[in-house]
Amino acid sequence: MATTINKQVVLRDYVTGFANESDLVITSTTVDLRVPKGSMTALVKNLYLSCDPYMRNRMRKPDPLSPATAQSFTPGKPISGFGVSKVIDSGHSDYEEGDLLWGAVGWEEYSVITPIPNLHFKIHHTDFPLSYYTGLLGMPGMTAYVGFYEICSPKKGDTVFVSAASGAVGQLVGQFAKMMGCYVVGSAGSKEKVDLLKNKFGFDDAFNYKEEHNLIAALKRCFPEGIDIYFENVGGKMLDAVILNMRPHGRIAACGMISQYNLKNPEGIYGLSLITYKRIRIEGFNCFDYLDKYSEFLEFVVPYIREGKITYVEDVADGIESAPAALVGLFHGKNVGKQLVVVSPS
Amino acid sequence: MATTINKQVVLRDYVTGFANESDLVITSTTVDLRVPKGSMTALVKNLYLSCDPYMRNRMRKPDPLSPATAQSFTPGKPISGFGVSKVIDSGHSDYEEGDLLWGAVGWEEYSVITPIPNLHFKIHHTDFPLSYYTGLLGMPGMTAYVGFYEICSPKKGDTVFVSAASGAVGQLVGQFAKMMGCYVVGSAGSKEKVDLLKNKFGFDDAFNYKEEHNLIAALKRCFPEGIDIYFENVGGKMLDAVILNMRPHGRIAACGMISQYNLKNPEGIYGLSLITYKRIRIEGFNCFDYLDKYSEFLEFVVPYIREGKITYVEDVADGIESAPAALVGLFHGKNVGKQLVVVSPS
Repeated sequence: MATTINKQVVLRDYVTGFANESDLVITSTTVDLRVPKGSMTALVKNLYLSCDPYMRNRMRKPDPLSPATAQSFTPGKPISGFGVSKVIDSGHSDYEEGDLLWGAVGWEEYSVITPIPNLHFKIHHTDFPLSYYTGLLGMPGMTAYVGFYEICSPKKGDTVFVSAASGAVGQLVGQFAKMMGCYVVGSAGSKEKVDLLKNKFGFDDAFNYKEEHNLIAALKRCFPEGIDIYFENVGGKMLDAVILNMRPHGRIAACGMISQYNLKNPEGIYGLSLITYKRIRIEGFNCFDYLDKYSEFLEFVVPYIREGKITYVEDVADGIESAPAALVGLFHGKNVGKQLVVVSPS
Repeated sequence: MATTINKQVVLRDYVTGFANESDLVITSTTVDLRVPKGSMTALVKNLYLSCDPYMRNRMRKPDPLSPATAQSFTPGKPISGFGVSKVIDSGHSDYEEGDLLWGAVGWEEYSVITPIPNLHFKIHHTDFPLSYYTGLLGMPGMTAYVGFYEICSPKKGDTVFVSAASGAVGQLVGQFAKMMGCYVVGSAGSKEKVDLLKNKFGFDDAFNYKEEHNLIAALKRCFPEGIDIYFENVGGKMLDAVILNMRPHGRIAACGMISQYNLKNPEGIYGLSLITYKRIRIEGFNCFDYLDKYSEFLEFVVPYIREGKITYVEDVADGIESAPAALVGLFHGKNVGKQLVVVSPS
């Protein structure tokens, strides 16, 4: 049977503290280019891989006290995540050669997958860059959509703060909030990103959190009347500063807390007792609980993209060899926009 | 005009750290026994005063960064809170001599109040101990009712944890949860309280948090499958231990965090990033946002009290002179059940 070389990104061992490029190793194996008919599996060629912050948590040693967190990767095996793929061969009657999919794949050039509804989605709109299915039209897009519209209970005139605001999810939340008539401020970690927020994504204001010695004061400056909605991507000190600046009945959508994922000892949150007085709701969510809304999301967002009312910035790393650096770079804020890896352009 | 002596409980100065009995001083003044006709005010004789944890926050110096927290008391003036009172004279056409009220009054023997809807409530059911209007039939009762039914989204079979479970609110939450068919565990700070939880209030299990060197393990023992609902009265280390033990889609009703109110530096909460993975909702609330449900609450709870299906334990301090010790005792867990002060039995 015909085979081909299959480069993979393998986890060396469980990671504690900051993840390093060397925690991920590129190895080569071979893969059969055919799958058995009727096997319910498909061989896919991975075109784009998505670098997402939650993946850091999958590098941890499994914690029996927290079984509800993301399932850990297996040391010595390729890591996995979301990607955009093309079907090379299929034993599954619903898929055929040439079909384009997005969903869960290994970090490798080719994956044998068992397509599962709600983990693998056929791509029908092919007039957009296919890479968008790692971001705007994929998991981060759905995350922004359900996080903002379902969790934040937004209304016109609300004041909205977004952290990691130029990232895969944040840039969309800001644009959605502006479309609703909210006042929107974002934080990011460089001048370039702050400029993007103000000039490309239409945020009303933005600041570089690395240049603010007092986050409480920075938020007070941007929100003299307080914050109604916080779209939380970072956690730690920023969350504490936000709680102090929240208005009564504020909502915090806890999408992620990237500042904490690489710390051996997470930072404490000290102002939580304020949520009773302020009647604040903090809600963790995961877009996979809302996948019945994926078609609705596409119907909502596709026209806006076509009309140029929603824009999206990607940071593209070239080749699977660049994948470890691209993923680890997320945790240092090296990416500008949605970080992804092109494994093969087609 | 006839006057009478009016003993008052006065705040000596703003308090930092643990409140002491000496932070509150008993003084005497005089009060006119008549109010002008048409003045919209009423002179009331205070029968019972309610000792509530939130009052500690009103002893703080006002914090411009947290204007949404409870309004601070004024040093040199009597503190205020909730009480049960009898109208002695009224300039307000809706109130007449002999009417019984519960609501906001000064901590003093007599108060001149301007009755305000949603701050002062006429007492119609007088076949219960009037002291119940500081607890079961007053603010703590409403807090338990809206906190459990509106914030916790409870359903039959849910596992429910209540901290400060023998307190004014906790004892009711546990009984409401049992009535709904939940599995209910409470924590408290003495063997006597734990016995009350198990034997009087019908909790399925209970533990003395002071005797557990590992709260995470204690909760794991009581909830091997995890916690669906946490009714949060204490904050701090308990909250962190609960978050680790929460099940996916769990709900935390943040009623109060009494363990933090007397600390100069609040404890940090370290496990908050788990709320994203577990899709946990943490929601602060205040029963005063739900006062349109007060009649509904009485219709709900009164029959249960009459049938003996809801019971209530009070800790009664005798005389206004005992009020400072009673209030400060709350923060050391000295009270067994709802703490109140009898100023005058009629």
